[in-house]
Amino acid sequence: MAEIIQGSVESAPGFQAVGVKCGIKTGGGPDLGVLLCVNPCAAAGVFTTNRIKAAPVIYCRDVLSKGSGVVRAVVVNAGNANACTGERGLHDAAAMAAAAEKRLGLPAGSVLVMSTGIIGHPLPLDKIEKGLDEAAGKLSRGERGGFSRAIMTTDLVEKTVAVRYNQDGRTVVIGAAAKGSGMIHPNMATMLAFFATDANVSPEALREVLQRVVSRTFNMVSVDGDRSPNDSAFVLASGASGASRIEGPDSPGWDEFHDALYLAAEHLARMIAADGEGATRLVEIRVGGADSFENADRVARAVANSPLVKTAIFGADPNWGRIICAAGYSGAPVDPARIGISIGGISIVENGEPSGADHARLVEKLKEKEVVIGIELGQGDEHCRFWTCDFSYDYVRINAEYHT
Amino acid sequence: MAEIIQGSVESAPGFQAVGVKCGIKTGGGPDLGVLLCVNPCAAAGVFTTNRIKAAPVIYCRDVLSKGSGVVRAVVVNAGNANACTGERGLHDAAAMAAAAEKRLGLPAGSVLVMSTGIIGHPLPLDKIEKGLDEAAGKLSRGERGGFSRAIMTTDLVEKTVAVRYNQDGRTVVIGAAAKGSGMIHPNMATMLAFFATDANVSPEALREVLQRVVSRTFNMVSVDGDRSPNDSAFVLASGASGASRIEGPDSPGWDEFHDALYLAAEHLARMIAADGEGATRLVEIRVGGADSFENADRVARAVANSPLVKTAIFGADPNWGRIICAAGYSGAPVDPARIGISIGGISIVENGEPSGADHARLVEKLKEKEVVIGIELGQGDEHCRFWTCDFSYDYVRINAEYHT
Repeated sequence: MAEIIQGSVESAPGFQAVGVKCGIKTGGGPDLGVLLCVNPCAAAGVFTTNRIKAAPVIYCRDVLSKGSGVVRAVVVNAGNANACTGERGLHDAAAMAAAAEKRLGLPAGSVLVMSTGIIGHPLPLDKIEKGLDEAAGKLSRGERGGFSRAIMTTDLVEKTVAVRYNQDGRTVVIGAAAKGSGMIHPNMATMLAFFATDANVSPEALREVLQRVVSRTFNMVSVDGDRSPNDSAFVLASGASGASRIEGPDSPGWDEFHDALYLAAEHLARMIAADGEGATRLVEIRVGGADSFENADRVARAVANSPLVKTAIFGADPNWGRIICAAGYSGAPVDPARIGISIGGISIVENGEPSGADHARLVEKLKEKEVVIGIELGQGDEHCRFWTCDFSYDYVRINAEYHT
Repeated sequence: MAEIIQGSVESAPGFQAVGVKCGIKTGGGPDLGVLLCVNPCAAAGVFTTNRIKAAPVIYCRDVLSKGSGVVRAVVVNAGNANACTGERGLHDAAAMAAAAEKRLGLPAGSVLVMSTGIIGHPLPLDKIEKGLDEAAGKLSRGERGGFSRAIMTTDLVEKTVAVRYNQDGRTVVIGAAAKGSGMIHPNMATMLAFFATDANVSPEALREVLQRVVSRTFNMVSVDGDRSPNDSAFVLASGASGASRIEGPDSPGWDEFHDALYLAAEHLARMIAADGEGATRLVEIRVGGADSFENADRVARAVANSPLVKTAIFGADPNWGRIICAAGYSGAPVDPARIGISIGGISIVENGEPSGADHARLVEKLKEKEVVIGIELGQGDEHCRFWTCDFSYDYVRINAEYHT
């Protein structure tokens, strides 16, 4: 059984991570993170489905699909997304990777790069190079820490987790860090996630597990389809645990690795939703009784993206009419006469009509830090979970005043 | 040529409309409107595509599809949507129609009914009956006025318009009223529109013209797909103008009638967007250069529904990155390298990259009451227009505190 342990992206043996200030982010916080592994790693990534893809997305996709498949480090800057920057942007992403490879003494094509921040401005390569000098110095002195803070933009909290499990009597660790904000309706809220593990997994198997896990975790924070030009999740697997190699779903250890990665990813996905811009509550939407996962997902997504539902939760208003309406226009073939809705475990609608739940108790449930909305469709056995947050004055303040 | 004239839903000869207080709406404003025609009218309606359909939608759909096709009046209450009210709701909608028919001395099946307001509460029929007594008295004394106010919920302004044109040397008038709020992201914002004309049009032709016009006007206020259980548009045509009968697209007068109805509907659609909950600005999105209308529509809809674009407009921030991103995830096959974007006629992006527009001038344009965002896709000749508004603190206030 995988278990969550105290830790960060550098919890797996052989990984080291640092964050430094290079001066890109307005406000002057740390804004350049480097994750390094002493061993060559198998690596996989999943990227935004937005037609507008940031330069580092294009660069990493190429490295992962055409390169040696062996990665040693990931470099991430915050404050500038290197998106909508044309040919120059592509050149800058490659130059950022090359600059890191030079300073870390790594072969060409072994460093992945990522950027998050403002769109349409050229990447300040000179600042990144100075930052890389400092980061390389720290790494060589064995210094650690600061990676998860350096990748933040409007995030209020650092998002890290580590998971430990056993395979073949060997302890395997997955360390992880993520960033994501503006998740209330994440049209353009860059979501980045980095997993670093000593599991022993082939690049193909790694990609498959990552895709499966992301589809049920980060993509259930309404990221999928509404992705930013930069959204990315990476996993690096060094094999240093000495566990037997996982080549595919039939390999021993596949399930354990999948479940451990899922545990880490769900933890981070919930943290991202809870730290949504202006959020005062984490909202988990559980849809059950669907005739397919796709229809469960449609209903959950429509409810999670409804500003009317989200403002009602902000106002602690048990407004089930808005929930049932969102289900109705979700595109799923819902049957109004079969829908059941609960808030915080209290049934409020049965068979499409109000069940006479106590209003004051519902309001209390809606004032808790975590709100669970259950929607039962009565059409089958498929289900899903989806995470979002409420919609507050601060969302408007942040997005009317912060130029992304 | 059709022209907009001073007027309201009762501007066409033979129509009379009143609004009264019947005590449903909290706050005590007028909340029951009756539109009556001295002549039998051909009638058509288009209704919400939400799977959750309010009882009056089901009632009117049946009357229009199975009835005599002759309508004399429309009765509308605000404050209670008669939605998610089960069998009782269906009974109440029919009872509301019958109560009106009795008091107005009209045959069974000649009155359409509509409701807007809170969901999931039984319709207070006794209040509606008392209101109908008062309205019938006013109508019999020839009193007029108050219809467009009586159908309002969170609307801040009454929405009426009248259009006049000529056919066969006869003057034809279309009077119209609409209501709609919460149009910022209208998940559940009931949009109602009523057109009353002395044009001479068959029920089939009326339905076809109405559908065409609604698809390019009200459905371009992001109502389509996100429709409330009550969204409806009705047109009543008495033929009293004496113009020759329009049976279909080949009939003389078809184009004139279509264009006049379009003119009235676009005017109301813009009013609805401008009066969106918390709106400080009307935003018109013009997408051009698309390879199909559907793709132009996808891009316009994605940009119009993006809270990040809308909060940027509220903050007068010429944040084209958010606009291009929304185009990128719209589902249309946009080519980043060909996109052009303008704000208030000033080009800000050309071929996917910033054109170096003057920031201060863009901010000035964004502070005007009407903001036009142009998006050129460079892939064809198809285009569309879409209306929305900005996203302010007041949207959150209204929807966190108003129980719909």
